[in-house]
Amino acid sequence: MTSGATGGRKLTDRQRLAWLRLIRTENVGPATFRELINRCGSAENAIEMLPELTRRGGTTRPIRIPTISEPEDELERAAAYGDRSVAIGEPAAPPMLRNLDQPPPLIAVKGETSVFSLPAVAIVGARNASLAGVKFARRLASDLGREGYAIVSGLARGIDTAAHQGSVDTGTIAALAGGLDEPYPPENAGFCNEIAQRGAIVSEMPFGWKPRAKDFPRRNRIIAGLALGLVVVEAARRSGSLISARLASEMGRLVFAMPGSPLDPRAEGTNGLLKEGAILVTGAADVASHIAPLIGRVHAPPETFEEPPDYSVVPPPRDSDRDRIVEALGTTPISVDDIIRHTGLHPAQVSMVLLELDLAGRLERHSGGAVSLVFAD
Amino acid sequence: MTSGATGGRKLTDRQRLAWLRLIRTENVGPATFRELINRCGSAENAIEMLPELTRRGGTTRPIRIPTISEPEDELERAAAYGDRSVAIGEPAAPPMLRNLDQPPPLIAVKGETSVFSLPAVAIVGARNASLAGVKFARRLASDLGREGYAIVSGLARGIDTAAHQGSVDTGTIAALAGGLDEPYPPENAGFCNEIAQRGAIVSEMPFGWKPRAKDFPRRNRIIAGLALGLVVVEAARRSGSLISARLASEMGRLVFAMPGSPLDPRAEGTNGLLKEGAILVTGAADVASHIAPLIGRVHAPPETFEEPPDYSVVPPPRDSDRDRIVEALGTTPISVDDIIRHTGLHPAQVSMVLLELDLAGRLERHSGGAVSLVFAD
Repeated sequence: MTSGATGGRKLTDRQRLAWLRLIRTENVGPATFRELINRCGSAENAIEMLPELTRRGGTTRPIRIPTISEPEDELERAAAYGDRSVAIGEPAAPPMLRNLDQPPPLIAVKGETSVFSLPAVAIVGARNASLAGVKFARRLASDLGREGYAIVSGLARGIDTAAHQGSVDTGTIAALAGGLDEPYPPENAGFCNEIAQRGAIVSEMPFGWKPRAKDFPRRNRIIAGLALGLVVVEAARRSGSLISARLASEMGRLVFAMPGSPLDPRAEGTNGLLKEGAILVTGAADVASHIAPLIGRVHAPPETFEEPPDYSVVPPPRDSDRDRIVEALGTTPISVDDIIRHTGLHPAQVSMVLLELDLAGRLERHSGGAVSLVFAD
Repeated sequence: MTSGATGGRKLTDRQRLAWLRLIRTENVGPATFRELINRCGSAENAIEMLPELTRRGGTTRPIRIPTISEPEDELERAAAYGDRSVAIGEPAAPPMLRNLDQPPPLIAVKGETSVFSLPAVAIVGARNASLAGVKFARRLASDLGREGYAIVSGLARGIDTAAHQGSVDTGTIAALAGGLDEPYPPENAGFCNEIAQRGAIVSEMPFGWKPRAKDFPRRNRIIAGLALGLVVVEAARRSGSLISARLASEMGRLVFAMPGSPLDPRAEGTNGLLKEGAILVTGAADVASHIAPLIGRVHAPPETFEEPPDYSVVPPPRDSDRDRIVEALGTTPISVDDIIRHTGLHPAQVSMVLLELDLAGRLERHSGGAVSLVFAD
């Protein structure tokens, strides 16, 4: 194992700072982070190599790397607030997240982290929920809570708030789209504090980060990832809750939906999910009967990072190799295996070029290991 | 073929009167009727043999057989009203009914019988329907009507009425629990006339028959039988519509249900059906996409009555055989095959004894060919 791995052990303070610095670097998301650690052996090494890798990826503008003091400041301010950044393999992190396709390397948590050891059910839905929907979500959360389930949601208005309210006494987890000090919507700030004292709040984003619209899909991924199943209570057509349901389904989580009248626009999305095979929920028993058999059977992998292959035997890619790979890529996602087959290059050479392009902001990574070029105009 | 069969041909007037007289006889339902025709060769012969068969079945009180003039009167009064009694194999009868487990031998019809040749969908539901339910049923009926489907329902208040209203322009069929001159509820009498002029009304029951509560399950069987699929719109727990859904399912018809809020008691039955596998309906497309592939594929059998086996080679049952069969029977339904195996008697002997018990009012016939003794106190 390299020094990048955690393996259930705790990071040293120095490692934690380097990890934070690397994940806060421009163009570095969870997938690129993992690739860099595997390639360079540690976050510190990766940060050293970043300028050269980026240049080879084809950008002259240097990418923005936080200074050493920035993560120090972030951790200090967060600690004063009671938050801490934990690596996904550390004991205080929610174990379910280890089983994501590309888990965030670090997650900010605050609260009673023992709640992460309960089997969890996510309950999400419309912000402009009906009174009946709110009542149903609150009752469902409270009934499942009494049966020993933690309830996960996103602290949004409507259904999310009701789900947290129903489970605040038994165990509730709120995933935020911004920093833990920036709950959204603002009127839920007081309630968010209450959740953080009795349950837990989590976020992928830096302390102090104000959530933007584009941060919510990442939060939705965390909500779905934390739970064994996700219940959608009221959702219009093309609503965010349906995206959460798709994410949950892609992660192999069970998807449940509350039925509603075909004449109610707030039931269009949920009825659509039911037509596609979601499990119909009229009460906690419908959820528990499907979730209970899964408890203890969704295993988190023991290690988040793998032993890197011995790259020393493979020559580094030449400029002509780099050109061939860029030529093979387009804006339509294709698998890395296809690129390897098509170019005949060594996998290590292909993944190095892709890493460089990624850091240069020219590559987009998709689920299932597919990649595409970012459309440059 | 015996003279009891219709085989797509029309009955003679004399046959029709004898059939009507036999089916109106006490203790003679569709199954017993069929057994008698197969056994005795014709309805006229059966009527002649009834007193002796009944006596052997163990009752001293003679069963009530209509006089010759009673069916004559019934047909005459019905004809004046525009109704006629058609045998289930005759061209004017709804062909879908031939495919029931025990089709009624005769059915009273009035109206535009060409509507029977359209593929049909039944729409049923709560009498105390919500405004939304009524609106949905009417729109569903009208949308399916425009796509060429006939709509079948039971003329009841609420959902049934809405289903007929939505399809009165395109083709609607009302199945009644009483005679065709006794529509229920009474306030629908005018609407029933309109249906009979533009679509059709049907009933198993005699002209002039006032419907009793116990006649409605028979009507529900006709509703389910006439259609390729049955849609339930709003149904409380333990409601009649759920019985219709079960009947439809037993007949191999598709069962559909409209979803509703778990907090609405009128959706408890329909949500329950959905959990059991009913197809979720939010619009006509959900029904049509499942029904369309069945059109023309549910074949009515060419003959309703079978060639009787040659009973002359089998000795008639002795009194001791009769006793053994009665001993083998109880109030729990068992299959006729089990009785044959248990007693070692010839199938013709067993079925003869069962027919006699049936006529004597001592036997109950269940679906799937099972029988039980009527509990006598």
